[in-house]
Amino acid sequence: MKPAPKSLPDGAPLLAFGAHPDDIEFGCGGVIARETRAGRVAHFVVCSRGEAGTRGTPAQRTVEAKKSAALLGATLEFIKLDGDARLEVRAAHAIRLAGIIRRVRPGIVLAPSLVENQHPDHPRLGKLVQDAARIARYGGLKELRASPPHAIAQLFFYAVTPEAEPSDITPVLIDISAPETVAAWTAAMGAHVTQAATRNYVELQLVRARLCGLRAGIAHAIALFPNDPIVVESLAQLSGGARRF
Amino acid sequence: MKPAPKSLPDGAPLLAFGAHPDDIEFGCGGVIARETRAGRVAHFVVCSRGEAGTRGTPAQRTVEAKKSAALLGATLEFIKLDGDARLEVRAAHAIRLAGIIRRVRPGIVLAPSLVENQHPDHPRLGKLVQDAARIARYGGLKELRASPPHAIAQLFFYAVTPEAEPSDITPVLIDISAPETVAAWTAAMGAHVTQAATRNYVELQLVRARLCGLRAGIAHAIALFPNDPIVVESLAQLSGGARRF
Amino acid sequence: MKPAPKSLPDGAPLLAFGAHPDDIEFGCGGVIARETRAGRVAHFVVCSRGEAGTRGTPAQRTVEAKKSAALLGATLEFIKLDGDARLEVRAAHAIRLAGIIRRVRPGIVLAPSLVENQHPDHPRLGKLVQDAARIARYGGLKELRASPPHAIAQLFFYAVTPEAEPSDITPVLIDISAPETVAAWTAAMGAHVTQAATRNYVELQLVRARLCGLRAGIAHAIALFPNDPIVVESLAQLSGGARRF
Amino acid sequence: MKPAPKSLPDGAPLLAFGAHPDDIEFGCGGVIARETRAGRVAHFVVCSRGEAGTRGTPAQRTVEAKKSAALLGATLEFIKLDGDARLEVRAAHAIRLAGIIRRVRPGIVLAPSLVENQHPDHPRLGKLVQDAARIARYGGLKELRASPPHAIAQLFFYAVTPEAEPSDITPVLIDISAPETVAAWTAAMGAHVTQAATRNYVELQLVRARLCGLRAGIAHAIALFPNDPIVVESLAQLSGGARRF
Amino acid sequence: MKPAPKSLPDGAPLLAFGAHPDDIEFGCGGVIARETRAGRVAHFVVCSRGEAGTRGTPAQRTVEAKKSAALLGATLEFIKLDGDARLEVRAAHAIRLAGIIRRVRPGIVLAPSLVENQHPDHPRLGKLVQDAARIARYGGLKELRASPPHAIAQLFFYAVTPEAEPSDITPVLIDISAPETVAAWTAAMGAHVTQAATRNYVELQLVRARLCGLRAGIAHAIALFPNDPIVVESLAQLSGGARRF
Amino acid sequence: MKPAPKSLPDGAPLLAFGAHPDDIEFGCGGVIARETRAGRVAHFVVCSRGEAGTRGTPAQRTVEAKKSAALLGATLEFIKLDGDARLEVRAAHAIRLAGIIRRVRPGIVLAPSLVENQHPDHPRLGKLVQDAARIARYGGLKELRASPPHAIAQLFFYAVTPEAEPSDITPVLIDISAPETVAAWTAAMGAHVTQAATRNYVELQLVRARLCGLRAGIAHAIALFPNDPIVVESLAQLSGGARRF
Repeated sequence: MKPAPKSLPDGAPLLAFGAHPDDIEFGCGGVIARETRAGRVAHFVVCSRGEAGTRGTPAQRTVEAKKSAALLGATLEFIKLDGDARLEVRAAHAIRLAGIIRRVRPGIVLAPSLVENQHPDHPRLGKLVQDAARIARYGGLKELRASPPHAIAQLFFYAVTPEAEPSDITPVLIDISAPETVAAWTAAMGAHVTQAATRNYVELQLVRARLCGLRAGIAHAIALFPNDPIVVESLAQLSGGARRF
Repeated sequence: MKPAPKSLPDGAPLLAFGAHPDDIEFGCGGVIARETRAGRVAHFVVCSRGEAGTRGTPAQRTVEAKKSAALLGATLEFIKLDGDARLEVRAAHAIRLAGIIRRVRPGIVLAPSLVENQHPDHPRLGKLVQDAARIARYGGLKELRASPPHAIAQLFFYAVTPEAEPSDITPVLIDISAPETVAAWTAAMGAHVTQAATRNYVELQLVRARLCGLRAGIAHAIALFPNDPIVVESLAQLSGGARRF
Repeated sequence: MKPAPKSLPDGAPLLAFGAHPDDIEFGCGGVIARETRAGRVAHFVVCSRGEAGTRGTPAQRTVEAKKSAALLGATLEFIKLDGDARLEVRAAHAIRLAGIIRRVRPGIVLAPSLVENQHPDHPRLGKLVQDAARIARYGGLKELRASPPHAIAQLFFYAVTPEAEPSDITPVLIDISAPETVAAWTAAMGAHVTQAATRNYVELQLVRARLCGLRAGIAHAIALFPNDPIVVESLAQLSGGARRF
Repeated sequence: MKPAPKSLPDGAPLLAFGAHPDDIEFGCGGVIARETRAGRVAHFVVCSRGEAGTRGTPAQRTVEAKKSAALLGATLEFIKLDGDARLEVRAAHAIRLAGIIRRVRPGIVLAPSLVENQHPDHPRLGKLVQDAARIARYGGLKELRASPPHAIAQLFFYAVTPEAEPSDITPVLIDISAPETVAAWTAAMGAHVTQAATRNYVELQLVRARLCGLRAGIAHAIALFPNDPIVVESLAQLSGGARRF
Repeated sequence: MKPAPKSLPDGAPLLAFGAHPDDIEFGCGGVIARETRAGRVAHFVVCSRGEAGTRGTPAQRTVEAKKSAALLGATLEFIKLDGDARLEVRAAHAIRLAGIIRRVRPGIVLAPSLVENQHPDHPRLGKLVQDAARIARYGGLKELRASPPHAIAQLFFYAVTPEAEPSDITPVLIDISAPETVAAWTAAMGAHVTQAATRNYVELQLVRARLCGLRAGIAHAIALFPNDPIVVESLAQLSGGARRF
Repeated sequence: MKPAPKSLPDGAPLLAFGAHPDDIEFGCGGVIARETRAGRVAHFVVCSRGEAGTRGTPAQRTVEAKKSAALLGATLEFIKLDGDARLEVRAAHAIRLAGIIRRVRPGIVLAPSLVENQHPDHPRLGKLVQDAARIARYGGLKELRASPPHAIAQLFFYAVTPEAEPSDITPVLIDISAPETVAAWTAAMGAHVTQAATRNYVELQLVRARLCGLRAGIAHAIALFPNDPIVVESLAQLSGGARRF
């Protein structure tokens, strides 16, 4: 997959946060593939090395994550917060993530959903990113003086598992039907060799995307959940609806 | 207001349903003005003459509705279902509305929301339109043989009053900030002279649109509520989010 | 129980609708007792004779309902809509109920809740009353010309069973702890001899009222569910909160 | 598939209602296959011949439905209510369905879910069955005198499409992983030749069942939605939980 | 505005908590004005100096807050928890707020709503106050021995922005239509000079209050959200309903 | 009450967590009694000595809890987290509880519900247990190496008060009608002498259980709220439904 070099008209990079080395890929990797193929810059921030997991050492998982991000055409950085399965909602974390938002200056931000009943780290990171996206706009915080305030365009939540899909937000379905998009996504998930080997994670995500696609009358789609209502200048932007059956 | 003659790239007309002569204008007239100004064809179907209302005769209200639709650049037809304050959810009504959908062949359809706690006719018409939009796709109904089946792109609900805004659908905010859009909308509401004279209806709608606009950091906006998830080909279509404060 | 002869400062009568001869008593009889004891006029409209029930003839149930209403200090009228277990949501019914509202001119109206999962007649009557309360305000309906339009102050829903309590409306708890109020209510429920004899109906309601009372730190209370937000002139009107445990 | 001849310990037959000839199979056919294989008697009541559909004549669809029911080990009867795409919620229909419930005397009843946003006939039939299940218990309705009152054990809703899954009821997942169960279900769906040929209906259902199964750590599962809380005598009945990921 | 010297019959003071120097005024200042004008004592507890904000120094904001509280007839104290944009939900904070509740011994307490999607400090303070209101009742906490346990009458949440309005609590609308009430509120908001100069904060709140007022058929109203069901001794306390349109 | 010595077919012990010495008994003691009577091993983990309470010293409450657990046939251990009315959601706590889950290796786990509006410690402990049940499955956490990973069968939430009952989870009702079960439960609640003496706690719980029982047509029942959908192998496991009225 070779992302086109030139930027999109709306230019701003895409910034995705993950609690573990594979969360972004399993939760919304197809969307990343689709956007980088269209020329959008994408950057991943991963907040642990997956060190609490049953399989894979931190070193292995780091290598897998780098390879996977590259397959999606994204850059990657690791940060350390509290560690895998130890994340807490601390103001200092939100301020730190706000600093990253100010540095990267994204349009759209992706984070795990706030639904409480999944891996404990996921909704906590989602909450930290939600807070960070607001704090990034405030002018008075000392720790953030390195970059000027920044307001993102929109925060979308992704769901790593079906249980994490919010029932109180109407999703937006992103069409990822292009065969090369699905192929890049599948390869990126597969690059997490230590995780993909067990429990059908790759199949789970492809089945979810196929089900979303069937609903929309297309091949594959991924549901994202907007943190705020979408604002459009015209109904022409919204001419697709998900109702095949 | 002179809508441009040429059609939009996505071409398909906009079809709006109202239970009473002024529902479309009060509920989403600003959106109509914005779309027709951009060259989209708009057609109104009004299902009573407002004959149960306290003010205005059916004849007066017919004249007002025609003038108002013209100010918005839309065409208008009246149909008779059960009459004002008498509407029931009957299969025959849904089939009749499906026939109109097949004839007009719209992309986007607008209807009053399904929220039960407002004028009894509003949610019932919303339900009838929701049903009609599905029935229009079925090939076997005798009454509908005049036109081939038609699948709309999306059904959006509008809310005539704040109470009718669904709390379980994430709204889409349509930017109607252009001064000439607001002016056309205000004039169209004012054309319902017998209604606008009492109870601050025009002020109610302008206050609602201003509040939506303030939330989105723009002058005015109107919230629409999609019946089905929105499907997009790229996040670039969704670069606006409503979070000013 | 001897209701005081003089009217309350806010004067307007209380109007309660029931689908069957015992619904008002079982669902909110304690509130009726409390209000009539304070001098408020109360009127019951019962929309069937309970002829689909397993026990009791229509004639027996008519006698029981009259006796029960008298024990609560209320007047009673029967109307015939579609019959017990046959009620449908028809516009003509709503208009008819609107005519009663115009004639009685109540402040507060009580109706069964809209929750769908109970006796089919209950939520349908609730919906008809909700519609009627709005239609009563419209000036143009021929059938209603006998009385001028009337706007009620508030519609409250009552729940005949726990399953009928709406989960999306914050209830208001009415203190019915006065021993003579509970006694009048218990007597009124017991007057429905053919029904009270089976299935612990009276116990069910007293247990519910005791549980509400325990939550509020009082002896007994009944939960009502407002159709619209309550408007007050001062927080002083709202100085009680239900949080004993 | 050869259902065992002897009845289950809890004996009572399973009764499933469908609005169209293929609804039961597509919505919950795997559950039927699993239950009849275990010896439970199953009976289908289909309320139209699918005459509004785009493909297949009523005669063809009747044949398909009979073949499909036989593949699932169920008996089948057709009844005529208002016709395909014409169903209305009428008290007379509910009473008629109550008569069938009294005649068949089922333990568990299956019906399409009440979610409003799918084929208009589906939630209406769901509502009619919900009402019928209550009316079947009342002793006073003349039309029902042929059989004594009957109280079912539980009503479960099935969802023909993902959109019809209620978000406010916690589902129960039925394990249908036995290969012969899935095979019987697949064959039964395929027997609806005129429908299965288009729009990936069979794939849609198998993808849904695989996704449910992945969540539960088994091969395939179907979600049912109980109308009332489940009552158990011991936690030992509830030892399975759906949380694989 | 000169609050009358004598106390209300129900006597107890009003206690309002804000995360930042202007939250109480922007979120519910009109209610404060209305209550102090009627003679109720009001006290504000502000938990930061707004030091993370873009505009205004902590010193400026302290002065503004004091002036604003005085305009509303309220007393004011600042406390320091974790600092602006740094608030965390810590048990020690809740215990500290409980100590204030015991000292002030209020009837009604006001706090920002628990809705998660706004300024991160707002829902956290709301949660701390919710916890504090319960902890204030417990007799065994060493830190609280200075004052005897105290049970408040009711906790109401206010919403600083429309996004913070809870959708799962039925609001109570407080009539603030008296011109001098609106004037005092507007002046108090304007006293936050460093904040009011940007982003239309004052307009936002007045538009919200006008929209609430239009719904209730009065000039202006503010929505509060009760933490617990309201308990009343008579329906006469609840004779106003918000349904103008 | 003498629990049978032999284990149930499904063998695994029941593990219940409580924030205070009496929470398990008041919230779900009847379920414990019913299960231990059937031979299931039950173990309680109590996370404070109730030292913030108004009545009873920690020493008294320890004695009461031990006596009460014995009356229910359960074993008991105390652990110290942050102390009564001081509990915080810390990752270290969840890991510690996960260690207990690994040691006890339960099938079903019981914890207080996540509803935010009750004693602050209750939902926090519920969240910690929810997290712990997941963390117990992960292989990489150093602190947990003493025991191999363990996946529980199901987590059920109990509600200490009616306010704590989740409205978004369909409950399961556990039949505790056997007179000796109710007697054992009542005795166990009464063993908390310092608490039972005030505020009608015992009556509150018995009234709740009677109301649940009335709904289900049995004597007494307790509602539990599953964290994940229930998975069953056959509808025969679900033959009871709660709909008496």
